[in-house]
Amino acid sequence: MNHSKLRNLCILFLIPLLTLIFPSPEGLSSLSWVLAGIYLAAIVGLVTKPFPEPVLLLLAVAASMVVVSVMGDGLLKMSAVLSGYASSTTWLVFSAFTISAAFVLTGLGKRIAYILIGKIGGTTLGLGYVTAFLDLVLSPATPSNTARAGGIVLPIINSISLALGSEPESSPRKVGRYLMLCVYMVTKTTSYMFFTAMAGNILALKMIEDLMQVHVTWVGWALAASLPGLIMLLLIPYIIYKMNPPELKKVDNKAIAAEGLRQLGPMSRREKLLTALFVLALLGWISCDFLKLDASAIAVCVMGLMILLGIVSWDDVLKNRGGWNTLVWYGGIISLSSLLSKTGFFKWLAQVLEQNISFGNHGDIAFIVIIFLSIIVRYFFASGSAYIVAMVPVFALLANASGAPVMLTALALLFSNSYGGCVTHYGGAAGPVIFGVGYNDIKSWWIIGLVITLLTFALQMTLGVWWWEFLMSLNLL
Amino acid sequence: MNHSKLRNLCILFLIPLLTLIFPSPEGLSSLSWVLAGIYLAAIVGLVTKPFPEPVLLLLAVAASMVVVSVMGDGLLKMSAVLSGYASSTTWLVFSAFTISAAFVLTGLGKRIAYILIGKIGGTTLGLGYVTAFLDLVLSPATPSNTARAGGIVLPIINSISLALGSEPESSPRKVGRYLMLCVYMVTKTTSYMFFTAMAGNILALKMIEDLMQVHVTWVGWALAASLPGLIMLLLIPYIIYKMNPPELKKVDNKAIAAEGLRQLGPMSRREKLLTALFVLALLGWISCDFLKLDASAIAVCVMGLMILLGIVSWDDVLKNRGGWNTLVWYGGIISLSSLLSKTGFFKWLAQVLEQNISFGNHGDIAFIVIIFLSIIVRYFFASGSAYIVAMVPVFALLANASGAPVMLTALALLFSNSYGGCVTHYGGAAGPVIFGVGYNDIKSWWIIGLVITLLTFALQMTLGVWWWEFLMSLNLL
Repeated sequence: MNHSKLRNLCILFLIPLLTLIFPSPEGLSSLSWVLAGIYLAAIVGLVTKPFPEPVLLLLAVAASMVVVSVMGDGLLKMSAVLSGYASSTTWLVFSAFTISAAFVLTGLGKRIAYILIGKIGGTTLGLGYVTAFLDLVLSPATPSNTARAGGIVLPIINSISLALGSEPESSPRKVGRYLMLCVYMVTKTTSYMFFTAMAGNILALKMIEDLMQVHVTWVGWALAASLPGLIMLLLIPYIIYKMNPPELKKVDNKAIAAEGLRQLGPMSRREKLLTALFVLALLGWISCDFLKLDASAIAVCVMGLMILLGIVSWDDVLKNRGGWNTLVWYGGIISLSSLLSKTGFFKWLAQVLEQNISFGNHGDIAFIVIIFLSIIVRYFFASGSAYIVAMVPVFALLANASGAPVMLTALALLFSNSYGGCVTHYGGAAGPVIFGVGYNDIKSWWIIGLVITLLTFALQMTLGVWWWEFLMSLNLL
Repeated sequence: MNHSKLRNLCILFLIPLLTLIFPSPEGLSSLSWVLAGIYLAAIVGLVTKPFPEPVLLLLAVAASMVVVSVMGDGLLKMSAVLSGYASSTTWLVFSAFTISAAFVLTGLGKRIAYILIGKIGGTTLGLGYVTAFLDLVLSPATPSNTARAGGIVLPIINSISLALGSEPESSPRKVGRYLMLCVYMVTKTTSYMFFTAMAGNILALKMIEDLMQVHVTWVGWALAASLPGLIMLLLIPYIIYKMNPPELKKVDNKAIAAEGLRQLGPMSRREKLLTALFVLALLGWISCDFLKLDASAIAVCVMGLMILLGIVSWDDVLKNRGGWNTLVWYGGIISLSSLLSKTGFFKWLAQVLEQNISFGNHGDIAFIVIIFLSIIVRYFFASGSAYIVAMVPVFALLANASGAPVMLTALALLFSNSYGGCVTHYGGAAGPVIFGVGYNDIKSWWIIGLVITLLTFALQMTLGVWWWEFLMSLNLL
């Protein structure tokens, strides 16, 4: 174990130790105070990463189990400490990870890519739009945007760049640099367009619903994000094209598509079944409020059917590390945050915020300030999920305390978590993968990322707000 | 998909379909009735195995989610359908699976084996006792008896048999047949000696505690099982030696032990840390009632510490398929059974049993009949866990209805699940692995298994009952 890892570990142990030693602030029970110390340590751990996320959360859960056993006076059962593992949020994410994997495993993702290339990939700009539409088509049921952008879109775009004679070292500007920027900025946009387009959305909505007493349906989310999202998807390939023009303009897309599709062969039974289940999942999520079904029930059913129909095997699921990692760490963090809620921590924090922060009667200003702050803060977080765990509760309570409009703030917060990560090349898990291919330089990435972030922010605060209020007036939100 | 798998699948879908079509019996809600259909289908699936256990349970959970959403009138949340995943039982088993794996991964299991061989393995009979003590030493913290018997004891015993010139094909009677029988019968005995010696124990106790309103501590379990268990451990190698004498009598154990230990080299840091954590876990479980700690909290902490200290890596945990399989399917079955409980199914079943079964005032006879029945029924189940899920609730309710002594029946039921699997070579997951090595014939295995089962039964019903009543009189149970 190296020096910095050891130091990071020591800090993690120090935080709950301090809450153990120092008495709890007025109005907060000592149990809640110590649990808050554990939660804070988990957040710091997610940022400094001395261990993978699931290990940190397992340690935090283990510590909470001991603390609740010893200090809880028997009021909380162990199942309350582990409640996140029975949360439908956790199983929705886990199931949807399996659906994501199916697009890679069956080759269906590749097939859609080559069809799009054949249709609209006649120019480099057209290929930019291929990344946008490909990612958009896959996004409603692929909550792992690393799997989507990194596992499906990137490999194809990378091989096309190479085939067009653009090498990372010698000729990045020919095609590759442009397309890589598109892949990242696009996936950061599609990620906020559907509730199920990013694992973090599901976690963030759970937290926001718990703290802000607001309910956003799958359809409501998709509708709210559709207008600003589609506009940005149309703008992004063009903006990047203007800011970072590729040297090559024309592409022989017909040959590339034909060769790609030839290699894939005719559409397999598994691909056809996956298409059917994908449509079924979408229909299910669209109508789940009407059917009185929970979104997670649909996801778990679709996962079950996938295994039943042989689209993926149980072995594929077992090998899908991303799924298990997310199961353990989402379940853990939801457990911890629900423990904080049960022991009155968030109520106490809300009171503290209310007593110390005042926007007067200017809820609208508070709204803009909170969302802008969320983007600034997001910049410091390498992981969107760490940001969600650390900051979303704070912003949510801040919004409550300042009288910001509830639904507007909720939506804008849910979306800013994703596009706020555009700036840096490590703002989301797909970032390092795409940047790592080697076509890009930090400077152009950050500048373009900043432009897209600010543009999205401006668009959402103007047109977005109008659109959301319009949807609310129609009772669609 | 072949014909018989398809037929088995159709049966699974038919059962809940029947409960959907036919109205629920008097005194039972239709929701509970349909959920019981799903539970029954899951049990049938665990026996016919058209899919691995976790897949069957995921399908059953998915179906329950839909049923509860549609028929539940909003009274049950999705988290109630998934409650087994927040059960401390599930996480106790998962954590202990990691501890089991550590004995294999670090080589500590092997080291203990060679030390024992050096001490008492001077004869073939002595080697039989090596299997007994080796398994016993490991059992308190290795709830996967497949990992223990199949992963640690078997490989060493197998290589010794081969080294002594006993080949499965040509000379099984020389040493191998004898030792293999020991490995299996011994692990079926140690498995009931500790709460944490077999995953099924943890599941069975959870069910029995819920249905019989009885509480068995870790220490209580170990004390109750110790006297009959130790006697059987002393008898088993000798009985098998008499019934199936190995041709070779003397063994050059010193050379085998020395060579084995030489290959392992000096004790590594990981092995030392594992020894320390193993002792810590035992101390924790022994004192957990006193410390007001939950047994699962100790297991999760030990797992966390193992990763923290580098005894196992998170990667090792991810690769430990047994752990994930058990997490998904135990969590699923506990969810289903708790749903049945919440919707009043077990209460209804108990009433039906009470109205139709009467042992008069002869609770003691009921006790013996129930335990004997449990062994007969166990014989038909290839998997101990399937037996637990299907039959333990029934026997528990039967005991309640017939006035059998609660604690005695609970203990005897908890133990019979394990030794009841002695008879057949597929009575537990380790069976096919050991039998598969090829030294054994079915006839001698079944005869010896039957003798040991009946002997254990007789011992528990006489000396065991006296011992348990003695412990109860001391308030140790």
